Amino acid sequence: MAEKIVYMFDEVDPSKFSSTEDLKIHFGGKGAGLANMTLLGLPIPYGFTIPCKYSLSYAETNKWPDHLKDQINESIAKLEKKSGYIFGDIEKPLLLSIRSGAPISMPGMMDTVLNLGMSKAIAEKMAEKNARFAWDSWRRFIMSFSDIVKETGREPYDEIMDEFKESRGKKLDIELNADEMKDLGELYLKKFHELLDKDFPEDPWEQLYASINAVFNSWNSERAVAYRKMNKIPNYGTAVNVMRMVFGNLNDKSGTGVLFTRSPMDGEHKVMGEYLINAQGEDVVAGVRTPISMEELKEEQPDIVKQIFELANLLENHYKDMQDCEITVEDGKLFFLQTRTGKRTAGAAVKIAIDMLDDKIIDEETAVLRVAPEKIEELLHKRISPNEKKLPIVRGFNASPGAVTGRAIFDCGRAIEEKRANQRIILVRKETKPEDFPGMIASIGILTSRGGKTCHAAVVARGIGLPAIVGAGELEIDEEKRTASVGGEVKFKEGDLISIDGITGNVYIGEVEVVDPEITGEFSRYLVMCDKYRKLGVRTNADTPQMALDALKNGAEGIGLCRTERMFNAKDRLPKVVDMIVAENLDKREKALDKLLPLQRQDFIDIFKVMDGKPVTVRLLDPPLHEFLPDYKSMVVEFTELRVKGDKGKRFKELEFMLKKYEELKEENAMLGHRGVRLGNTHPEIYKMQVKALIEALIESQKAGVDVHLEIMLPLVSHVNEFIRLKELLKPMAEEMLENADLVPKNPIQWGTMIEIPRAALTAGEIAKEAEFFSFGTNDLTQMTFGFSRDDVEAKFLTKYIDEIYPPIMKDNPFEHIDIEGVGKLIEITVVDGRKARPGIHVGICGEVGGDPHSIQFLHDVGLDYVSCSPFRVPVARVAAAHAAILDKKNV
Amino acid sequence: MAEKIVYMFDEVDPSKFSSTEDLKIHFGGKGAGLANMTLLGLPIPYGFTIPCKYSLSYAETNKWPDHLKDQINESIAKLEKKSGYIFGDIEKPLLLSIRSGAPISMPGMMDTVLNLGMSKAIAEKMAEKNARFAWDSWRRFIMSFSDIVKETGREPYDEIMDEFKESRGKKLDIELNADEMKDLGELYLKKFHELLDKDFPEDPWEQLYASINAVFNSWNSERAVAYRKMNKIPNYGTAVNVMRMVFGNLNDKSGTGVLFTRSPMDGEHKVMGEYLINAQGEDVVAGVRTPISMEELKEEQPDIVKQIFELANLLENHYKDMQDCEITVEDGKLFFLQTRTGKRTAGAAVKIAIDMLDDKIIDEETAVLRVAPEKIEELLHKRISPNEKKLPIVRGFNASPGAVTGRAIFDCGRAIEEKRANQRIILVRKETKPEDFPGMIASIGILTSRGGKTCHAAVVARGIGLPAIVGAGELEIDEEKRTASVGGEVKFKEGDLISIDGITGNVYIGEVEVVDPEITGEFSRYLVMCDKYRKLGVRTNADTPQMALDALKNGAEGIGLCRTERMFNAKDRLPKVVDMIVAENLDKREKALDKLLPLQRQDFIDIFKVMDGKPVTVRLLDPPLHEFLPDYKSMVVEFTELRVKGDKGKRFKELEFMLKKYEELKEENAMLGHRGVRLGNTHPEIYKMQVKALIEALIESQKAGVDVHLEIMLPLVSHVNEFIRLKELLKPMAEEMLENADLVPKNPIQWGTMIEIPRAALTAGEIAKEAEFFSFGTNDLTQMTFGFSRDDVEAKFLTKYIDEIYPPIMKDNPFEHIDIEGVGKLIEITVVDGRKARPGIHVGICGEVGGDPHSIQFLHDVGLDYVSCSPFRVPVARVAAAHAAILDKKNV
Repeated sequence: MAEKIVYMFDEVDPSKFSSTEDLKIHFGGKGAGLANMTLLGLPIPYGFTIPCKYSLSYAETNKWPDHLKDQINESIAKLEKKSGYIFGDIEKPLLLSIRSGAPISMPGMMDTVLNLGMSKAIAEKMAEKNARFAWDSWRRFIMSFSDIVKETGREPYDEIMDEFKESRGKKLDIELNADEMKDLGELYLKKFHELLDKDFPEDPWEQLYASINAVFNSWNSERAVAYRKMNKIPNYGTAVNVMRMVFGNLNDKSGTGVLFTRSPMDGEHKVMGEYLINAQGEDVVAGVRTPISMEELKEEQPDIVKQIFELANLLENHYKDMQDCEITVEDGKLFFLQTRTGKRTAGAAVKIAIDMLDDKIIDEETAVLRVAPEKIEELLHKRISPNEKKLPIVRGFNASPGAVTGRAIFDCGRAIEEKRANQRIILVRKETKPEDFPGMIASIGILTSRGGKTCHAAVVARGIGLPAIVGAGELEIDEEKRTASVGGEVKFKEGDLISIDGITGNVYIGEVEVVDPEITGEFSRYLVMCDKYRKLGVRTNADTPQMALDALKNGAEGIGLCRTERMFNAKDRLPKVVDMIVAENLDKREKALDKLLPLQRQDFIDIFKVMDGKPVTVRLLDPPLHEFLPDYKSMVVEFTELRVKGDKGKRFKELEFMLKKYEELKEENAMLGHRGVRLGNTHPEIYKMQVKALIEALIESQKAGVDVHLEIMLPLVSHVNEFIRLKELLKPMAEEMLENADLVPKNPIQWGTMIEIPRAALTAGEIAKEAEFFSFGTNDLTQMTFGFSRDDVEAKFLTKYIDEIYPPIMKDNPFEHIDIEGVGKLIEITVVDGRKARPGIHVGICGEVGGDPHSIQFLHDVGLDYVSCSPFRVPVARVAAAHAAILDKKNV
Repeated sequence: MAEKIVYMFDEVDPSKFSSTEDLKIHFGGKGAGLANMTLLGLPIPYGFTIPCKYSLSYAETNKWPDHLKDQINESIAKLEKKSGYIFGDIEKPLLLSIRSGAPISMPGMMDTVLNLGMSKAIAEKMAEKNARFAWDSWRRFIMSFSDIVKETGREPYDEIMDEFKESRGKKLDIELNADEMKDLGELYLKKFHELLDKDFPEDPWEQLYASINAVFNSWNSERAVAYRKMNKIPNYGTAVNVMRMVFGNLNDKSGTGVLFTRSPMDGEHKVMGEYLINAQGEDVVAGVRTPISMEELKEEQPDIVKQIFELANLLENHYKDMQDCEITVEDGKLFFLQTRTGKRTAGAAVKIAIDMLDDKIIDEETAVLRVAPEKIEELLHKRISPNEKKLPIVRGFNASPGAVTGRAIFDCGRAIEEKRANQRIILVRKETKPEDFPGMIASIGILTSRGGKTCHAAVVARGIGLPAIVGAGELEIDEEKRTASVGGEVKFKEGDLISIDGITGNVYIGEVEVVDPEITGEFSRYLVMCDKYRKLGVRTNADTPQMALDALKNGAEGIGLCRTERMFNAKDRLPKVVDMIVAENLDKREKALDKLLPLQRQDFIDIFKVMDGKPVTVRLLDPPLHEFLPDYKSMVVEFTELRVKGDKGKRFKELEFMLKKYEELKEENAMLGHRGVRLGNTHPEIYKMQVKALIEALIESQKAGVDVHLEIMLPLVSHVNEFIRLKELLKPMAEEMLENADLVPKNPIQWGTMIEIPRAALTAGEIAKEAEFFSFGTNDLTQMTFGFSRDDVEAKFLTKYIDEIYPPIMKDNPFEHIDIEGVGKLIEITVVDGRKARPGIHVGICGEVGGDPHSIQFLHDVGLDYVSCSPFRVPVARVAAAHAAILDKKNV
């Protein structure tokens, strides 16, 4: 018997596959969904799938396997039989949609070809019933076949359309009538010949075979290959799905829509959808017309809605997760075209997870995994204060939560420019399109006057966690004049400050009062559940009592990094710091330090009090001294001005002195210069002052009943001796102070070091013999491992590496997501060698990636004890750590 | 039977030890030498050794083992019997020297105590024969016992001496008479009581036991422990050597000297020595009196000299290496006090090795190892041109070879200051002392008016390879007035330019014409012998045809690094480079590059011609662009001046433009910024121009019959994709050019990369899949692995880490000697992972340590294919590589 290659949707048996994932690997995502829906008895347009592996064999041999053609032909015959339509027939033409279907969706794959099987003759016949629809479908088919299957792009056809409209004085496609659509089709046919040097294929079989090959080929398009390489997607191949066309734009008993089995906005347990009567799928996504809700549809077609609800629940029960479906109603008959797991806001994700857990649909671990840690930040978005008295000027759909204030900008290009100039801007557009993406990510919020909750702007904004309001229909947006009016009255123009609240959908002029989010209800329950599973501790980077307090509210278990230099930077202290820096001798420097001591001591007392009972890791001074001095160029300019003017007064002398000092201290590469323990070793008096302040604070705090867990951390160690010398200088001093105060610390003081220099990682075994704990400073470690100065490279080439050069040189910014291959290797060496030298040594991380979910998975795997991140990221880290632990368990 | 602890010198049997090393481990260096000399029948003052291990047990238990005291007492009895002197006896007192003797000599160990066994009563008796000698010896013994055994330091006694001399109006010790010496001794006794609260021990046994304990304790002195830790010397313990005192200052038939079995200056096969009649050992080393030669001594004491020559040859034959001995003649009787392998100049080392090889005393491998690679540079010192007509003003001893010109400086402190100001200075002193060392290493040459070839200045200068002339007695040096005169006429003063020739001993005023050394004769034979053994290839870093030519003369096998930016820096090209940098768009930049192309092409043609048949590795542009622009501060100052003056003319506009460009390009940390392949990827037009120039040069050269081996090297890769993108851009372009020229390169062009960023090392496996060769850039790799910006850290803290902080934080400057623990680990990872991914991938090094002998041993061990160093270091590398290969073989 010949190998079975082509599967009708009802010939696939999902039960023969170990999991949905496995089914997808064979039949692709769409194919798997269609097979499952068939199995569940959902009404879908009949059709068939060619499994993924045949695209691979085609790529190798450039030939079809034996029998593929026969089986396609047989499958079309089955389709004809089941549907009653005939492929290529003039009277009852079977029209098809052809779609690629990779196991993991990815860009670069072939788009859908609709209306395949059409010819001029068929269009002519169809036109007898609905002329405009027939000729419009025909011209669209020619264009998309040329664009997608023959890879000509659609621009040549768009040009024809534009010229055509101009010549007839029309602006919108919709203004064109049936005859004009037909004329356009004729022009398209000519253009096709011109571009490809052959006639457009009228034979439907030729169209079908070419489209299948186009799907096969798209798997190995440059873009797809680059994407797979970068995202490490295996070379699975892509399936081909061939399905009978159903038409939502046949008549008023037809329509098309998308639906969610629960609310993707807030997780409410209720089927939600948006529906356009007498329309095709692309009309919904484009957001050009505002759709109606399921409730509104119910009034018109109650039976259809009832059926939709039943089937949606059936699907959700099968997948045990919220589904996002495409549906089409053709002349009163409902079809499901696609189902997939629905995207949702973080709030919805939490609610759905908790509801499904309570309903015993899923277990606790699954519930934890149902909320993506990257999205948690959304829940920590600010809200408009209940005390705010300002009234909104207009209300739209609450498409993505969060309240923000920014300057209104009406154009994506300018949005990007303003972002570069460090402006916080809100992008205001009638609607958005895929090419607007760079402008959208340059904004802190989106406001559109068109579209529904599933329009492009809404989907993208939720995806990247930007507050957004869409479909604020009362707002008249004039993109040329850069104004927004309500009822003909201009309310704001470009550059004006506006506020949007993505939670309520309200738009305000000017600033509004916002409040911080609170962790309550289901979200709080969810986080506590995460804590049960995670292995990584979560601390915070906090330099002030207020930050520590915020972090505690968010669930921080300690301070992983308290930067003492931030205390030096306060306005009232800077002059004292400058005195210390410019001191001509040790004696004067010590006197200046004496003035700083009581200030630092009080800082520590305040922080110890807030962190009562929790560990506090204090890092001694890290940055180079010249960072505390005034701007160099300004000093040179002012000095030169005074000199030319002959003014050699007090200010001149002062500048002369400061310039000399600056030039003494200044370095070519401050990042690699005289700072951290290097400064500590050449100027031990600074660290002595800091340790004195710490110990005095500890003594005073403990006497006042505060439970202090102090960890003293030395930054920038590259050689173990840098640590040893300072420990031997500072530790006995601390011990003597405690002895003199007759106080035994409730918790022994720990002496540890940052691991932020490659050499420290490479010699971690040596350092662990001396240091009682390690904390990775991934910012510096990344800078030195890559040889990237963060301040310099991001603008100069790193963003180009990621976004502009194609294929990209790097996928991610290593300062945001840990570079596992390079920096990660150093982290692994450190943990392994460090633990060998000092079993059980406590190892944490206090760099920026400590709050990044992608990185946390790695940090869990490598066996760190805790991560430390900024206070507002603490909940994110709690969730990410729980994910990591559960995924780790599952993989074992 | 009781354990044998104490060994008389003739009780040690060297044949029971596997090697001299092994013998040293048990009996220490001095003990081993004394045992060997005893065995050979040399006359040595009788005595005994307490082996090393007893200092360890003493350190642990703070007690002597059973029987140690008994055996010491027995040994003293044997000594009394053999010598005829009695310990503690007034009439015939046995006086002793006590010396520590570690297996490997190291600082921090106890100095010698001389004249042990003296008491006031003994001195009184001795004074009957030679009063001044007796009382001087007594007071010296009190001081050194207090200083060394009781660790009081000698300063309190020096103060007494100074006050004493002042009170009597005397300047020099030598002016003091016997009574005064006795008075001083009495004052010393009082001071001893004052310092230690007890009387000076008159009992010789108490003196002896205390001195032995002092030796034991000195093994664990802070300084000795730190030195061992840093130099990884095992905890062997130290031996104690007790020996009868012999006196070179008894009468004119007495004397003391040092001798070498061959000339340490030039290797001449002839016993050489320096001898002071009626003097003690320290008088020779101090260089205060000018000694006489063996020839001169022969006239006075021919028998003694005959005996010296015979015994010296006996010793050399035993050790099969040139020996350096201390001798003393006591009243006409010769004693050898110590023998050890003699230090020598590089020239002497080469000659001695070749002579001993030819005489079949040693084999070829031993001959290779006999010349320390660090010293080879000495042989490459410049000489005064035979054409130089200038006459010397004076001639001294040629103590260390090489001809240099510099400014005369009469004080070590100022020498250091001038060095900091980048002055090349020659230190001019009457004599030098150990505390002058920092001033000596700050100099490029040394000139003294006192001392012989073994005085402090000579020994140190040879040790560190500085040209030196000592004992230029006609030169009257006035250190206070900072002048040097001959015959009362001032010839030069501080700051004047002088020249010295350490080969002839001639001193000149002003500059002299010098010539480069040539590799001829024994040296050339020696280097060819090295080439036979080494496994590492030796290439050179050369950017010009002249450098390439120099390197070829020195034996370079190719160019490992040709830096193209040096070609940009030439004065006539800089304006074109600036045009390129400030170009406002790609078109203008390409036009500017077009002007540079023919210049680069000609550079390459010239280099290919010199290197005909040998590989040339060309590195594409590496530094950031702003490095080519004028100084920033000067521009700011000039611009501000013009602005204040209201002069807004052409220069103002020019500066305005340049400042804007500079600020655009400027980076906080240029080292970690926009340079190397980063610039290559964002401005591919620059690398395109360079590759075009290279390929055009290759085509033209090959057509002219030159055999070109071109290796194109991309700098600063941190991610493999940075390399891939450029290779994919440049390689096809090169191939097309060759095709168009219808030329197949005789040797395929190799495309490789520097490994100079930690991440490149950590991901070498990935990079090796794409790159055809690797070359370590250890300068950058060290900067990033340590987080040290070389320009900044050396002055700011690195020299402090090495020289000023005690114990030192780092032993070596990692930019000079490779840091094996950190940077070395990355090199190992690279080689292992790189070879796994691309078996046999060619791996070299072109950083500064490529010419450093210490580093070359490691680079050989780790399996590199070649090192590349500056032209003048090529011979050093050839020798070091041979050493590495031979030592490697011996260790297997």
